[in-house]
Amino acid sequence: MNGSAAIAGIGQTEFSMDSGRSELTLACEAVSAALDDCGVAPAEVDGLVTYSTDLNNEVEVARSTGIGALTFYVRTGYGGGGTCAAVLQAAMAVATGVAKAVVVYRAFNERSKTRYGRPQPVAGWPDYVRRNAGGGSRWWPWYLPFGLGTPAQWSSIVFQHYMHRYGVTNEDFGRYAVLARTHAATNPAAFYAGKPLSLEEHQGSRWIVEPVLRRYDCCLESDGGIALVITSAARARDLRHPPAVIAAAAQGLAANGDVVSNYFHDDLARFAELELVADQLWRQSGLTVDDIDAAMIYDHFSPIVFMQLEAIGFCGPGEANHFLADGYGTLDSPLPINTHGGLLGEAYIHGVNHITEATRQLRGTAANQLSSVDHVLVTAGMSGLILSRG
Amino acid sequence: MNGSAAIAGIGQTEFSMDSGRSELTLACEAVSAALDDCGVAPAEVDGLVTYSTDLNNEVEVARSTGIGALTFYVRTGYGGGGTCAAVLQAAMAVATGVAKAVVVYRAFNERSKTRYGRPQPVAGWPDYVRRNAGGGSRWWPWYLPFGLGTPAQWSSIVFQHYMHRYGVTNEDFGRYAVLARTHAATNPAAFYAGKPLSLEEHQGSRWIVEPVLRRYDCCLESDGGIALVITSAARARDLRHPPAVIAAAAQGLAANGDVVSNYFHDDLARFAELELVADQLWRQSGLTVDDIDAAMIYDHFSPIVFMQLEAIGFCGPGEANHFLADGYGTLDSPLPINTHGGLLGEAYIHGVNHITEATRQLRGTAANQLSSVDHVLVTAGMSGLILSRG
Repeated sequence: MNGSAAIAGIGQTEFSMDSGRSELTLACEAVSAALDDCGVAPAEVDGLVTYSTDLNNEVEVARSTGIGALTFYVRTGYGGGGTCAAVLQAAMAVATGVAKAVVVYRAFNERSKTRYGRPQPVAGWPDYVRRNAGGGSRWWPWYLPFGLGTPAQWSSIVFQHYMHRYGVTNEDFGRYAVLARTHAATNPAAFYAGKPLSLEEHQGSRWIVEPVLRRYDCCLESDGGIALVITSAARARDLRHPPAVIAAAAQGLAANGDVVSNYFHDDLARFAELELVADQLWRQSGLTVDDIDAAMIYDHFSPIVFMQLEAIGFCGPGEANHFLADGYGTLDSPLPINTHGGLLGEAYIHGVNHITEATRQLRGTAANQLSSVDHVLVTAGMSGLILSRG
Repeated sequence: MNGSAAIAGIGQTEFSMDSGRSELTLACEAVSAALDDCGVAPAEVDGLVTYSTDLNNEVEVARSTGIGALTFYVRTGYGGGGTCAAVLQAAMAVATGVAKAVVVYRAFNERSKTRYGRPQPVAGWPDYVRRNAGGGSRWWPWYLPFGLGTPAQWSSIVFQHYMHRYGVTNEDFGRYAVLARTHAATNPAAFYAGKPLSLEEHQGSRWIVEPVLRRYDCCLESDGGIALVITSAARARDLRHPPAVIAAAAQGLAANGDVVSNYFHDDLARFAELELVADQLWRQSGLTVDDIDAAMIYDHFSPIVFMQLEAIGFCGPGEANHFLADGYGTLDSPLPINTHGGLLGEAYIHGVNHITEATRQLRGTAANQLSSVDHVLVTAGMSGLILSRG
């Protein structure tokens, strides 16, 4: 696995709250843009990977973009937690020769159509939907009567325990939100381009889940599409841009687990799934935290950034608050985080926009370009990547 | 890929029309049976693969069977057409070191709960269900007003064209149904154990889709569960049974395609998806049709066996009827087919029961054991396997 595959092309639509066109159109625009970006012809593509929650069938995306026969197509589940697992799948296909050029795509009208942040329509939907949306295990309906009807609500049970354990406040979380919005402000593709956020504005925004999450702790809900082209590192080196080599890719479902927000682990203040992912990333890549030049950390809600920084090992348990307060995360710090503005500032495209930003940083084409980038870590709670300059 | 992974363990529940217990119970029984079969401890399992239509979450299956942390979990779509793709996924994980011991599972109460043979509840279900059930592309709703509401109906459009092209009749299809039921009759695990079918009974059974499918051309609808344990061929050789080495595994979505029954191909009498799969199987394994000692051919409806025999190359286009009439398919023929009774005679467990039968034939433990079996081919329309004696 180590280094045999690379992200050769990236493509995206604009990020908005009302795209005005179908999800299939968004998907095809993103796929075509990613192929154009690297110069791979649609006819070369023999693999398509997306997520179990994506409504765009492989056959339709292929037919509409000029892609022909496919020898690899698979979907990964567990919502945003599985974001990086799609890249793992694609890299496995390339490494084993099952496919030569795999496109990962994700496109939705997540703001103008079905908003993930709204209460999930569990009651009216059949088992099939609830279970495969990655949103719910068999136990989920038991939580609903207690008011846990949205991702913000069910995640906050875990976050509140974390706050209690380490004395972290919502104002502390706000410092991450301010950081993300600062980066978004200078990223023209970001929804919040030109609109930084002050800590006062954060603290003045309404509670979504008191005392855990305010409005500005919650990610955007976005319309948009993104695609990645993954091929062998050798082939990628012959294409238009320097490849983002997949140095490591992993997914993880901890023992006695559930989806990202689970109440079964012995220690709710630890992110057991990401610890499992991090172990694999270091082992596959041979790298350590000291080698990482920037990190794109899944941030559907501010607190999860704190827990992931600890799970990866950038700091110890309970130390993320001080880590960020000390200035880590900014563009000129030793570990810049979410340099595009993240899911709070750029867009919520299922977390796939973290992967495109990591690729841009390695190419040297990011809006907030860092000066020297060899290795970028990307996390998505239950999955992760290390991308390296090729 | 070639030969690096193997099926080490198989497990199943009884096959019935009313299991009397939950789908999760069936899944866990099958998984535990497969692990017991080969002697792999639950704690060794680090991968779980199932189908996008399976309602049993990985977390629940793991928790209930003693399986711990997972580093690989993915789902394959396109219904029964994707059956062998789950084994491809597992083999890829083993080949790349992403997982060491992967369990594939499929369990449902497909007769006593949601019957796949009934009209699909498209109207009342949200997009999400229709699209991800593998049953429908964006075009599907356009077919519904014309009476194509069940798998039998939409498949028959293609089958009828095949009949027209090659002068094949329903009585010809009946000869395959008789063959399958003959094999099921002597398989104690089969739903139709002890109940062979005569051609007269077949021809006397009611039309499901006239003039294509009679009742006995249609597969069973079954309650039950099956699991497979896939690990490295080297590890498998140290376990309880001779391994069924995965000599080749492939999936295929033809250009300008749709799900298994599609109306877009230039030539509806050819099975373009399986031709694509077969090419990969021969290339991966280095084998040819002459090396195949037995074939387990996906048979949700009799006619698809004819089309698949031709797509694989066991006979030429339009020749399957003569091939079967000449006696191929029987236990003492050069190419025994569906020796367990297939989906018409044993059970409909999504086609996974074809994979268990192939494994048993290679081990020498099938109810209708063949005398000399080195290589068995398994098809599922859009995916396929070659398993070899280890």
